[in-house]
Amino acid sequence: YVQFAEGPLLDGLYWNEWPNSTVSTLSSNYSHILYENLLLGVVRIRQLKVRNNTCSVHSSFLTFLHDCYSEYRYRAEDRSDFGLGSESEWKYTPASKISPWYWGSVGFYSSGGFMFTLPKSKQQSLKKLEFLRQNSWLSRGTRVVFIDFSTYNANINLFCIIRLVVEFPATGGALTSSHIYSVKLLRYVTTYDYFLAFCEIVFCLFIVTFIIHEVIQIVKLKKDYFRSAWNWLELVLLAVSIVAIAFNIYRTLKVSQLMEKLLSDDRVYPDFYFLAYWQVLYNDMIAINVFFAWIKIFKYVTINKTMTQLSATLSRCARDIIGFAFMFFIIFFAYAQLGYLVFESQVEDFSTFPNCIFTQFRIVLGDFNFEAIKAANRILGPIYFITFVFFVFFILM
Amino acid sequence: YVQFAEGPLLDGLYWNEWPNSTVSTLSSNYSHILYENLLLGVVRIRQLKVRNNTCSVHSSFLTFLHDCYSEYRYRAEDRSDFGLGSESEWKYTPASKISPWYWGSVGFYSSGGFMFTLPKSKQQSLKKLEFLRQNSWLSRGTRVVFIDFSTYNANINLFCIIRLVVEFPATGGALTSSHIYSVKLLRYVTTYDYFLAFCEIVFCLFIVTFIIHEVIQIVKLKKDYFRSAWNWLELVLLAVSIVAIAFNIYRTLKVSQLMEKLLSDDRVYPDFYFLAYWQVLYNDMIAINVFFAWIKIFKYVTINKTMTQLSATLSRCARDIIGFAFMFFIIFFAYAQLGYLVFESQVEDFSTFPNCIFTQFRIVLGDFNFEAIKAANRILGPIYFITFVFFVFFILM
Amino acid sequence: YVQFAEGPLLDGLYWNEWPNSTVSTLSSNYSHILYENLLLGVVRIRQLKVRNNTCSVHSSFLTFLHDCYSEYRYRAEDRSDFGLGSESEWKYTPASKISPWYWGSVGFYSSGGFMFTLPKSKQQSLKKLEFLRQNSWLSRGTRVVFIDFSTYNANINLFCIIRLVVEFPATGGALTSSHIYSVKLLRYVTTYDYFLAFCEIVFCLFIVTFIIHEVIQIVKLKKDYFRSAWNWLELVLLAVSIVAIAFNIYRTLKVSQLMEKLLSDDRVYPDFYFLAYWQVLYNDMIAINVFFAWIKIFKYVTINKTMTQLSATLSRCARDIIGFAFMFFIIFFAYAQLGYLVFESQVEDFSTFPNCIFTQFRIVLGDFNFEAIKAANRILGPIYFITFVFFVFFILM
Amino acid sequence: YVQFAEGPLLDGLYWNEWPNSTVSTLSSNYSHILYENLLLGVVRIRQLKVRNNTCSVHSSFLTFLHDCYSEYRYRAEDRSDFGLGSESEWKYTPASKISPWYWGSVGFYSSGGFMFTLPKSKQQSLKKLEFLRQNSWLSRGTRVVFIDFSTYNANINLFCIIRLVVEFPATGGALTSSHIYSVKLLRYVTTYDYFLAFCEIVFCLFIVTFIIHEVIQIVKLKKDYFRSAWNWLELVLLAVSIVAIAFNIYRTLKVSQLMEKLLSDDRVYPDFYFLAYWQVLYNDMIAINVFFAWIKIFKYVTINKTMTQLSATLSRCARDIIGFAFMFFIIFFAYAQLGYLVFESQVEDFSTFPNCIFTQFRIVLGDFNFEAIKAANRILGPIYFITFVFFVFFILM
Repeated sequence: YVQFAEGPLLDGLYWNEWPNSTVSTLSSNYSHILYENLLLGVVRIRQLKVRNNTCSVHSSFLTFLHDCYSEYRYRAEDRSDFGLGSESEWKYTPASKISPWYWGSVGFYSSGGFMFTLPKSKQQSLKKLEFLRQNSWLSRGTRVVFIDFSTYNANINLFCIIRLVVEFPATGGALTSSHIYSVKLLRYVTTYDYFLAFCEIVFCLFIVTFIIHEVIQIVKLKKDYFRSAWNWLELVLLAVSIVAIAFNIYRTLKVSQLMEKLLSDDRVYPDFYFLAYWQVLYNDMIAINVFFAWIKIFKYVTINKTMTQLSATLSRCARDIIGFAFMFFIIFFAYAQLGYLVFESQVEDFSTFPNCIFTQFRIVLGDFNFEAIKAANRILGPIYFITFVFFVFFILM
Repeated sequence: YVQFAEGPLLDGLYWNEWPNSTVSTLSSNYSHILYENLLLGVVRIRQLKVRNNTCSVHSSFLTFLHDCYSEYRYRAEDRSDFGLGSESEWKYTPASKISPWYWGSVGFYSSGGFMFTLPKSKQQSLKKLEFLRQNSWLSRGTRVVFIDFSTYNANINLFCIIRLVVEFPATGGALTSSHIYSVKLLRYVTTYDYFLAFCEIVFCLFIVTFIIHEVIQIVKLKKDYFRSAWNWLELVLLAVSIVAIAFNIYRTLKVSQLMEKLLSDDRVYPDFYFLAYWQVLYNDMIAINVFFAWIKIFKYVTINKTMTQLSATLSRCARDIIGFAFMFFIIFFAYAQLGYLVFESQVEDFSTFPNCIFTQFRIVLGDFNFEAIKAANRILGPIYFITFVFFVFFILM
Repeated sequence: YVQFAEGPLLDGLYWNEWPNSTVSTLSSNYSHILYENLLLGVVRIRQLKVRNNTCSVHSSFLTFLHDCYSEYRYRAEDRSDFGLGSESEWKYTPASKISPWYWGSVGFYSSGGFMFTLPKSKQQSLKKLEFLRQNSWLSRGTRVVFIDFSTYNANINLFCIIRLVVEFPATGGALTSSHIYSVKLLRYVTTYDYFLAFCEIVFCLFIVTFIIHEVIQIVKLKKDYFRSAWNWLELVLLAVSIVAIAFNIYRTLKVSQLMEKLLSDDRVYPDFYFLAYWQVLYNDMIAINVFFAWIKIFKYVTINKTMTQLSATLSRCARDIIGFAFMFFIIFFAYAQLGYLVFESQVEDFSTFPNCIFTQFRIVLGDFNFEAIKAANRILGPIYFITFVFFVFFILM
Repeated sequence: YVQFAEGPLLDGLYWNEWPNSTVSTLSSNYSHILYENLLLGVVRIRQLKVRNNTCSVHSSFLTFLHDCYSEYRYRAEDRSDFGLGSESEWKYTPASKISPWYWGSVGFYSSGGFMFTLPKSKQQSLKKLEFLRQNSWLSRGTRVVFIDFSTYNANINLFCIIRLVVEFPATGGALTSSHIYSVKLLRYVTTYDYFLAFCEIVFCLFIVTFIIHEVIQIVKLKKDYFRSAWNWLELVLLAVSIVAIAFNIYRTLKVSQLMEKLLSDDRVYPDFYFLAYWQVLYNDMIAINVFFAWIKIFKYVTINKTMTQLSATLSRCARDIIGFAFMFFIIFFAYAQLGYLVFESQVEDFSTFPNCIFTQFRIVLGDFNFEAIKAANRILGPIYFITFVFFVFFILM
């Protein structure tokens, strides 16, 4: 909770955190020979800083405290050069427009920053890091450090894009986390992949015919077409499919482009993170698409008698259910508000308002930590818990 | 469970427990220069003792046992001076009237005691602690030791008031715990804070007009006014709001007063614990206020048809429900009583009667430790558990 | 799972296990002077053995294996003297009739055995244990070792009777466990205790008048009296109360007798374990008594209209409910049987048939370990789990 | 997640993993004298490899990566001799037809491979392993190593067949697991066993008469016989019983045969694993048989009035229930699909499609890991969770 962190200390932490990376750095030199996983290009390290005096110190403390570095916000970012030299590690590199921001545990970071790449050999890497440490590359204003690298496993044809993150919140201390994307960027390698490629082409053709079909229907029915929720669903499915196809083509091109660059010069950091990010987003999109496709099945089974009966019953008592749900949610949010205000600073599960809502859902399902609630507030904790359970179970159910 | 603790041993424990504090003591010397968090003033250590012979020893043991120190109770407290010198650590300092008592895991402690502050430098602190240990400041009568200090983080403008507690129950052994309050005592620093201050003033004005409105209504309706539960709710809300405003003003004054004192002499222990305690209480009060404000929404939606219907149904079967609830609670308490008597000394969750009630609620929700119940009593444990589950699920639901 | 244990190894284990006891042995020498807890008398160590060839070895293994020591059973117990000397540690001491058997995790042990007490000083204790080890007091036939001692805490007037157990199952290896009873054997010490004593006397008088009342009723109503379940309940309550009073008197006498013996010679092992055992049983009895007293409340509220209505409804549909419950339990036991046979040797929770039943109850309540079930049997595990959940939730509820 | 493993490193891992086996190897020399558990015969080590170039490397990586070893598949298995000598460790031994394949955590392995046995003495074992390590017996193509041995405990007459497995997935790294079967292969040792044997004979006679009875019924009723589900159940029970009896006889013969071989030469590895595997399968079969026998009870209680009533009600609303269940499962599978696509690579519980289904069942029962879901996808995770819970609890129940 309360860890003290200062300039030199940060470096210590930084070094402690390093080992699991140095191991891989070590291995990277011989990666062409023996390892199952091949390190692609080099490791890139990037930091983001905030400006001094980005927060206001109360007048009575001004004699003690001269500096004040706020939390990371885009506006408070320190973009000025510092330290020695004019190399990229001392100069701010602005973020490229398309690269995604990173959502850390205490902030939402831009993709620019002070960045440099580690050389290929282990000794040189250590020397470089030592040099940066002596010249205090990490300062009190540093808010986050990213360590990015990618590996490729030929056996199973998967890229692994790894990002190690060390966040330095304004309260002091350091939070380490890691982000690993395992994605298949190089498609069309084995026979099975070519079969998949064939399926994709068939799918494209199917989408084209489907679009024509829908366009005809729209022309025919005009406004009536847009009244049915099923048709809207179909349009959404189509749109997502088209975007997916477009991304698929773009991804293939981009990867081959990056690969070419990497093959010509292996001292360059290949920005696969950016591609992996979009690949994951693309997967999510596909997932939602498939989910709605499942729901579409209902369109064709509605003729079923049981269904009609059920939906009729539902629509008849819809009014009551809505009134009831309205009432339920007023009380539910009242409790969430109460939990938020009382337990906010003590219990992890109540630290933000959405978390409170999730926590209350989990209480309903029987997954909760009563001890923590009780420890946070000996009187209000149990009262909150028991009245909430009573409310949910005994009145509404 | 059964740990042996004696005078010299306690000191050992005390020293073991110390490190996480000495680290911060160490840092406190340079706190003006480099750290994110500033240690305010100095660290204060306080102990509470009980008198000898505060419990009665059975006649047959009198030959073995001459001393007897009971659990901490206000009456049994030892307030006489002891040891050497007349400094505050050997003299009892009575509790100030307004400072809150501390609710530890084995007792409810007054805020007086034998207290002293640690000097600013680390070496002197160690020397002082060593000196106290040699003169056995901690004796067999010691029941609790508090270590209080506060830090301030300028970056996010939060005070952190920390209390480390070592309790020595009458059974021997030592229980350590900590209590951390993170509160924002210095308000009105940034622009956003000034905006909040403006909102608060608007709120005060609103409360004033509301009071006038209610007073007029009371004069008009007289006794009828107090018959409606909604009006009572409104009065409670008003009262809490007024208290909140009053505390807010008091807090602001008190903090600035403490800050001034601290700025003039930084070897003084600033009693922020007291303020933080009230601040947390104030937050809880506000939370409950907001909760009731949410409930008030129902007053305005009762016109809704569904509601009226629902409340009508509820009031009609209220008699049955009450009879049922009455029956339920008799059996529920019978089980709680049974669980308390059988598992009291073996299972943590059943150690007090309220805990039994909470534990039974948690069993209903599916959060329980069957292994512990079974280990405590191989025959009654499972019988208690299964009949209770049967009773709750199969008969009443 | 598969630990190898042999004669000399056992001693090693035994010594590893010892420290938490030697610490207390060490402290026992000075216990009269400084400690919060007083060791009463001396520590007693007791072992139980089984005879060789108590199990039959298959003919094909007879060339390899000459000895065979079965699990502990009363019949297989080895009661013959062994080793050197004729002291109690080499001679079998038969169990006294009233001392309770001990229910360990792999057996149910008699209270006899080869026992000896440790001397008061630490050095002599070590020497004695060393001597026993060299003469292999623990042999392959040893099945369990008990280490018993008691402490008394004068501050809170509680006895703590501790039994450390090392079991050596027939499969090899060693299982350590401990059994702690915290009981208040010396009553009537403080003023509050005397008040309780007064209450007890009042309770006795009340019981006497109650008995007279019931006897009169029995004489009056004769056979009709025994037809009402309420009257049976009352008789049971009375019987338990009388037993409780009798035990209370016996306990008080026995404790003072033991104390006297202990005061006259402190090298004797005081058998408080026996008393503590009955005290705990007595507490359980009282707990059940109080539970039934709660249930008795219903006798007086049955006049209540709601109750009558409810019980009428219940008795009318009792036939259906019984049929239903019958069906439920057939399937429930079929599943328990299945779970027992399939998961018996792999999952702890299914190791015995009663455990299977408890585990199934816990599954219904949402407390289960799906991973373990799945690991035990990749195909039957999930099938068992999902069909069981379906059966319970979707068909019967 | 991403561990790098290469030839020499594997050996290191292999040695680290070894100790818990060497301990038993050590003990095996003296096993005839002192231990509770007897090591039967010798330890066998077996590995499976895959051929080089069993997977296709993308053209752009061909300059870096020359070798490519895919995941273990039967087709990709490397069966050619390698290394030095013509001993069994360098030569492929084909799998015997009846020995079961092993279902590891990343593959399904055949029972052939490169195998050798360790000599009886510890020093020779170490020497042999050292020799293999220097000649790199484990290569990059190695996918799994099995270490098999069996022990016998005469005290409780149980065989313990142990298989330690080290899997080397294509991604690099190593996964260790163990598989232990405790089975009673030698039956008919004690008097109680002979009693069981008698019961088995009675059971066989009973089965014979039952078969005759059923045959008569089939002849009598002809086609009508096969219309009743009860009769089908009976036939299945009969079939399983006959298979069980047959296996029982085979097992007894096989064990005695193996024992003989072992007794004549104790340097041979006895393949008890194979027997234990079938024994466990046999137990499962028996378990299912008994389960259906329980269900058969219903056949005889259907006359009961309540049952008929219940089954009548059920059959009447069966149509609705089926329609409802159909709808439920469409949505359920839609969610499972969504969960699978979104969380596949991040959350263990969603790693395969069947796992998704199990996880969703567990969510319904209240056993879930919300944190993991949220960490995997900050936006879709909670949406998935809350809409799923709503769907299950509020619409369908």
